[in-house]
Amino acid sequence: MLYVKTPEEVLALIETEFSPLAQIETVPLSAAMGRVLAEDIAAREYVPDFDRSTVDGFAVYAGDTFGCSDAIPAILPLQATVLMGEGADFVLNRGACAAVPTGGAVPKGADGVVMMEYTEDYGDGTIGVSKPAAPGMNLIFRGDDVYPGKVILQKGRVLSGADIGALAAIGQVQVPVAKQLTVGVISTGDELVPPEVQPGPGQVRDVNSPMLEAMLSAFGCCVRNYGIVVDDEALLSETVQRAAAECDAVLLSGGSSVGVKDAACRIIESMGQLLLHGIAIKPGKPTILGKAGAKPLAGLPGHPVAAYFVTRLFVLPLLGRLTGRDMTAYTVTARLTESISANHGRAQYHCCRLTRQDGQLYAQPIRGKSGLITTLAGADGYFCIDRDCEGLPKNAEIQVTITSGV
Amino acid sequence: MLYVKTPEEVLALIETEFSPLAQIETVPLSAAMGRVLAEDIAAREYVPDFDRSTVDGFAVYAGDTFGCSDAIPAILPLQATVLMGEGADFVLNRGACAAVPTGGAVPKGADGVVMMEYTEDYGDGTIGVSKPAAPGMNLIFRGDDVYPGKVILQKGRVLSGADIGALAAIGQVQVPVAKQLTVGVISTGDELVPPEVQPGPGQVRDVNSPMLEAMLSAFGCCVRNYGIVVDDEALLSETVQRAAAECDAVLLSGGSSVGVKDAACRIIESMGQLLLHGIAIKPGKPTILGKAGAKPLAGLPGHPVAAYFVTRLFVLPLLGRLTGRDMTAYTVTARLTESISANHGRAQYHCCRLTRQDGQLYAQPIRGKSGLITTLAGADGYFCIDRDCEGLPKNAEIQVTITSGV
Repeated sequence: MLYVKTPEEVLALIETEFSPLAQIETVPLSAAMGRVLAEDIAAREYVPDFDRSTVDGFAVYAGDTFGCSDAIPAILPLQATVLMGEGADFVLNRGACAAVPTGGAVPKGADGVVMMEYTEDYGDGTIGVSKPAAPGMNLIFRGDDVYPGKVILQKGRVLSGADIGALAAIGQVQVPVAKQLTVGVISTGDELVPPEVQPGPGQVRDVNSPMLEAMLSAFGCCVRNYGIVVDDEALLSETVQRAAAECDAVLLSGGSSVGVKDAACRIIESMGQLLLHGIAIKPGKPTILGKAGAKPLAGLPGHPVAAYFVTRLFVLPLLGRLTGRDMTAYTVTARLTESISANHGRAQYHCCRLTRQDGQLYAQPIRGKSGLITTLAGADGYFCIDRDCEGLPKNAEIQVTITSGV
Repeated sequence: MLYVKTPEEVLALIETEFSPLAQIETVPLSAAMGRVLAEDIAAREYVPDFDRSTVDGFAVYAGDTFGCSDAIPAILPLQATVLMGEGADFVLNRGACAAVPTGGAVPKGADGVVMMEYTEDYGDGTIGVSKPAAPGMNLIFRGDDVYPGKVILQKGRVLSGADIGALAAIGQVQVPVAKQLTVGVISTGDELVPPEVQPGPGQVRDVNSPMLEAMLSAFGCCVRNYGIVVDDEALLSETVQRAAAECDAVLLSGGSSVGVKDAACRIIESMGQLLLHGIAIKPGKPTILGKAGAKPLAGLPGHPVAAYFVTRLFVLPLLGRLTGRDMTAYTVTARLTESISANHGRAQYHCCRLTRQDGQLYAQPIRGKSGLITTLAGADGYFCIDRDCEGLPKNAEIQVTITSGV
């Protein structure tokens, strides 16, 4: 018998029942931003590949400048001028110096660079140095950044702009990433009309299909929308089976009436295995999860706010699991602007708006009856009241997961 | 005379010198995720457009159920059964009830819904109710969610999945958003080769072009890449002018040698006005900013880490300003895993990795010489040490801006 599970149990179930698909594709660097890295990336060469100056100045043997000052400059013959983008394939003579630009190669032997500002060109082929160089000063040595075999990015990471820069630096212009998942989205309900249609008596617009499509696309999935299916078990079954054949995962949303919910259970069970029937959260309790082979089939609540939370809290982690994605997330600390009650024996989730005052972040819960989509509109994030907590007082410190984006 | 400005002065300068372009385009709802809303969105109708039950049960006059119990149920004739997706265009008789599904319409007059669980169908056309309904119980009244004229989303907002749901709910299937900016990216430097090329002696791969392209694309810009231009003022000038003619903003990166930096200043000045020459941050000081008409022209440092921070801290806010984008961002609180020094008279930025231990978040600074791209690779975020601060001890509490994404 399946019983209602806690959020922690559901996340553990996802880990146990599903595994990374390990489907890898290779994309050019310009298409890798935001993708999930499928393999550890190690450098295959030294970066930089030569000793490099970090300033405009003169490469020297540091020892030749010890003790110099404004009053008693070290006077060093200018042996050569290194040009940007060219090698410095010579050995610096002891007691001499070489002009090097920022980023330019440093001749062999040199172990420091004196900044231009601390030098004077006497015009007779010698340079006066008025500040000593310490060994290693203003230099990046070969391989300081990376050396062959050094892992610079670990698999599972969602590639950021900085990561793209690192991949460019090591010449990794083809990037192994997890294949994008194709997710089928089905809405059910006799009362639903597409968003562009003016609802007639007793009808409402289908909110979940466009909302899920947006959330899944932003998460990096390809979404296949199977439209609105009326409450007819045979038709629904046929649609779910078609979606399961064509997609890596299927999300069935709606069917808030008892009959359809039972039908969804029967359909999922007939296609494989029912894993979960109910999650102890509010909103979002009437959630079901099963699998056909390795493919997840989820039945989400019809209420948009409930469908939203179930997607954020469980569907995205499940899809993340299939792609081996690192799902580490962070929360910000804020204080409640008002007290809030909870006594449902279920973890209770609330959307909130955030404001900053005198350096302190405040969270204002967005009130509304379950199922009212405008409790989501304009939210900056959400927070949870634990199942064992009877409520939180005004000014209580809470952890907010940010959902609005810069 | 232009002097080095603090980060706060630079952000104020951006507000003063640049204005939203107010270029609006309309996109279908399915393409609106992540776009910047260009107008306030107000509902034009009631949502829901009818009184709606939130449970499967029986619509009643609440008064007719007062005082009922398991022992003494209220016995109400079943007047009608409302079907899902159909209207309930009748008045409920006093003393009667009507069956309604979750989300179904409630007949006129009814002011409460009793859940199925608290009723019994006697099979003789009457229903026994064993728990009283309070007025408004299990009901969403017409317009509870939104009513005509109610602003549900404010302009400047980056549309989230939840926002897309709210737009669907009110039938806003065409969405006014800020037009995407086209940003031109130019790299300069005789030492640069494209990432796919094996660098020769004294050469390094161009990191900034692909990194900026990734960051700007993820920020919602169209990027036009003008490639690598050698250190030749005439050629550079021609490229910057062409980019300025074709784009909304131009980012010139590199030119770390003094000569090229001066050339970039001269080019920007000749095209309009130089606004900024140097920012008091580390890394990132050698940054210039100007404008040709209303178009920003920025000269970023050649060092990838410096270019990265200047882009995060100033270029994105500048581009956000042009699109009227809400740039509110949040930080997470963490403790330093090690002490870190700073004494440059400049705000100092560090990338870090985050780990969680016993519920506490720890930030480990990623050490490295300026210009080493791998100090960025794998970073979870960054933090700042204020210009007046000489360093931070181990365990100091810091605010980290998250840059890695779930």
